Amino acid sequence: MSLLKNKKFTSVEDVADIEGLVAKALAYKANPLKDATLGINKRIGLLFLNPSLRTRLSTQIAARNLGMEAIVFNVDKEGWQLEFEDGAIMSGNTSEHIKDAGPVLGSYFDILCIRTFPQLANREDDYSELFISEFIKHCGRPVISLESATLHPLQSLTDVITITECLKQESIIKKPKIVLTWAPHIKPLPQCVANSFAEWMNAWEGKGEFIITHPVNYELAEKFTKGATITQDQDTALKDADFVYVKNWSTYEDYGKIYENDPSWMLSLDKLKTTNNAKVMHCLPVRRNVELSDEVLDSSHSIVTQEAGNRVWAAQTVISELLQNNK
Amino acid sequence: MSLLKNKKFTSVEDVADIEGLVAKALAYKANPLKDATLGINKRIGLLFLNPSLRTRLSTQIAARNLGMEAIVFNVDKEGWQLEFEDGAIMSGNTSEHIKDAGPVLGSYFDILCIRTFPQLANREDDYSELFISEFIKHCGRPVISLESATLHPLQSLTDVITITECLKQESIIKKPKIVLTWAPHIKPLPQCVANSFAEWMNAWEGKGEFIITHPVNYELAEKFTKGATITQDQDTALKDADFVYVKNWSTYEDYGKIYENDPSWMLSLDKLKTTNNAKVMHCLPVRRNVELSDEVLDSSHSIVTQEAGNRVWAAQTVISELLQNNK
Amino acid sequence: MSLLKNKKFTSVEDVADIEGLVAKALAYKANPLKDATLGINKRIGLLFLNPSLRTRLSTQIAARNLGMEAIVFNVDKEGWQLEFEDGAIMSGNTSEHIKDAGPVLGSYFDILCIRTFPQLANREDDYSELFISEFIKHCGRPVISLESATLHPLQSLTDVITITECLKQESIIKKPKIVLTWAPHIKPLPQCVANSFAEWMNAWEGKGEFIITHPVNYELAEKFTKGATITQDQDTALKDADFVYVKNWSTYEDYGKIYENDPSWMLSLDKLKTTNNAKVMHCLPVRRNVELSDEVLDSSHSIVTQEAGNRVWAAQTVISELLQNNK
Repeated sequence: MSLLKNKKFTSVEDVADIEGLVAKALAYKANPLKDATLGINKRIGLLFLNPSLRTRLSTQIAARNLGMEAIVFNVDKEGWQLEFEDGAIMSGNTSEHIKDAGPVLGSYFDILCIRTFPQLANREDDYSELFISEFIKHCGRPVISLESATLHPLQSLTDVITITECLKQESIIKKPKIVLTWAPHIKPLPQCVANSFAEWMNAWEGKGEFIITHPVNYELAEKFTKGATITQDQDTALKDADFVYVKNWSTYEDYGKIYENDPSWMLSLDKLKTTNNAKVMHCLPVRRNVELSDEVLDSSHSIVTQEAGNRVWAAQTVISELLQNNK
Repeated sequence: MSLLKNKKFTSVEDVADIEGLVAKALAYKANPLKDATLGINKRIGLLFLNPSLRTRLSTQIAARNLGMEAIVFNVDKEGWQLEFEDGAIMSGNTSEHIKDAGPVLGSYFDILCIRTFPQLANREDDYSELFISEFIKHCGRPVISLESATLHPLQSLTDVITITECLKQESIIKKPKIVLTWAPHIKPLPQCVANSFAEWMNAWEGKGEFIITHPVNYELAEKFTKGATITQDQDTALKDADFVYVKNWSTYEDYGKIYENDPSWMLSLDKLKTTNNAKVMHCLPVRRNVELSDEVLDSSHSIVTQEAGNRVWAAQTVISELLQNNK
Repeated sequence: MSLLKNKKFTSVEDVADIEGLVAKALAYKANPLKDATLGINKRIGLLFLNPSLRTRLSTQIAARNLGMEAIVFNVDKEGWQLEFEDGAIMSGNTSEHIKDAGPVLGSYFDILCIRTFPQLANREDDYSELFISEFIKHCGRPVISLESATLHPLQSLTDVITITECLKQESIIKKPKIVLTWAPHIKPLPQCVANSFAEWMNAWEGKGEFIITHPVNYELAEKFTKGATITQDQDTALKDADFVYVKNWSTYEDYGKIYENDPSWMLSLDKLKTTNNAKVMHCLPVRRNVELSDEVLDSSHSIVTQEAGNRVWAAQTVISELLQNNK
């Protein structure tokens, strides 16, 4: 039985069984080549409209572990700018419409993966998820999001895997208190990782308490946070936390801005004292001593490397499900 | 017996048997992995001096279908600018001469593929095909053109494959009327695709009538068009057409310019009414509603996706021939 | 017994047995696929912070010859700028610290290769080899230098292989006289290739005499040249030479400058007359008629293509040693 509801992986809403995905991922971690022929003679295309390190490498490795041929294509750098607007008169900077590129890519690959960042200019545009939804509509193949305008589901699946793994390693039975805390940054960043983590935490029965904390004006879209406790008091949020997920995001309401960048929101060892010896998570890349201090990242609290390593098993699990569904 | 005359594929002049290539390509389409070990332990290098989507991906996939290791190298972006001028004093922007890079690449690969666009500044320079001919001269390996300054032979082979396939699908026995029509664009484009299509149509015995239509001043080089009917009356050209190939090109005579950009040259459903329910072709990328209207591209007239998909089989056939010739 | 002293290859100081490496490389050249399964299910990551043609392709091919999966990642172009400074407050242009990227890359790959050029702004910074040493420290995997701030060891190993091969081909028993000569260039270049060649020549017992010749003010770091004869008289240096290695470098003392660019330092056929019919070497890319004249490069003196071809066997030997050491 499939662990996914749909022939795509773009949100927790495409998932039928979170715990099943986590268990499968941990089995791949224990034995990476257990399904080494599942994807034989199949091809996966990894399309990047934006830069990537972990996402690209981990997905490429995951596909190879399943015997698939993985081809990376940096669309903007190796090709040209795509148009996603239906009916556009293409006399500007875009050279090819997704209505034409999509079916062609679909004819070349068995599974397609795509990364598209938001523009952070117009909220309606970004939150419509036009790019990835048009891509899915026109390519006619199972699609995996490698981060879209509003979500980063492979990261969130990785995060659930990593939390589960930590609980197992420490033989913890109780459901953990998990905190998502805003952190300062120098650039306006997308809300994707935060939205996605909130969406997955709210859907995941394995969590205990889930709290989001951020300064005033940094509210995330209710669509993703609904169900979580939200507070502007970071100290209260951190109290007794088992896991602290650190991430910057720009404003959602007055969209894509930096309203306040109070450095006191940067997590410190001192702030971690009231936690339950919390594990600190971050999706990386992290700006040291801006988002997160050296003292935290270099301490035993940090599980960011373990987390990044688990990206492989999250990707391998999702690809494997889509291959098996497609049979 | 080889279907190619030479150990290179840069023009229809390198082809011994067009129909043989088409038949072989359709056999690969029916069974992509029928020669999956032909290229085992062989390497093909795909060098891009200019961006590419379909050409890169289709050639890479074609090589893998034959068991070859395919390595893509974006020369300008990952390396540096090459010099092609014999005797150049290299105190400018070029960092390496083709006389040095060519033999080195030849020592690394069994077959080499190269894409080099024209500069559209000086016609004599572009039409001398200096870049690809110097590359062939110095690399000492079979070379496949992935589009050169004046021609795009893999595209044209694909086009003959696609036309043949359509005729077979519809059990048409009569030789088709094929029209190449100029279309508007916002940038001065190379003449490659048009030159190459003309060259192949004139050489191909499978076609019936072949007509080229374009506005005044857009004459192509006679070297490639000789044998075709040429008219500036698009309506007459389209009458009873079975296939309409749509493409923009810049001026050849007063080289590389846009003389006129009359939007009425854009193909419409209305214009297709006098055709024999014509199939509409384009090499892609296409600027929608500039070169070709949504209404045509989204109609059943359009075979552009089928055409782009066939790029794989054209490339696979040519690589296969060069591998077999080399034994 | 390992031919390397350390689980890294960044300098001749990591080498236990130069002659052993050369013999192994020549055995691979004779039979490229003799260890075709040694690296099966292992992955090598090739990270480029700077452009590369030969180094990238030869290392990629070498890894594949050993059955390894090779993944190329152009860090700056496909990812973002890395920070190497410990304790940096990352509010500038760097997006990820090597302390975070290193362990993640180490979790994805079995062997890592990295190319990082010097900045040529501050000698202390470049000669501290901060980038590659921090990378080695944090990634936790065997590391191969694909050229660092001060050295280019795969090139130098290649050079020893090539010299040895020439001596064998011509059945020469006497130890050769080898000259490293400075050549003009239009840009300030790193000292890496020259430093590295000097370091290897001084360590290699197979050489006879080793002379470095350059204009006044172009002294290299004594750390690498110690043991060599150094002269500013190119004519005397060239006399009876068996091999002439041509290379430009910028000044070391007053760091990273072009003091003099006397074109008479460019090697000519005339200058080669007093040599012992010397073989001329260069690491490539070479600026023709600036660093080296057409007449020399196009003559039988030049072995630059053979040299570049040997890059594959140098890389294959080093990767093979690191794979075997790791068992």
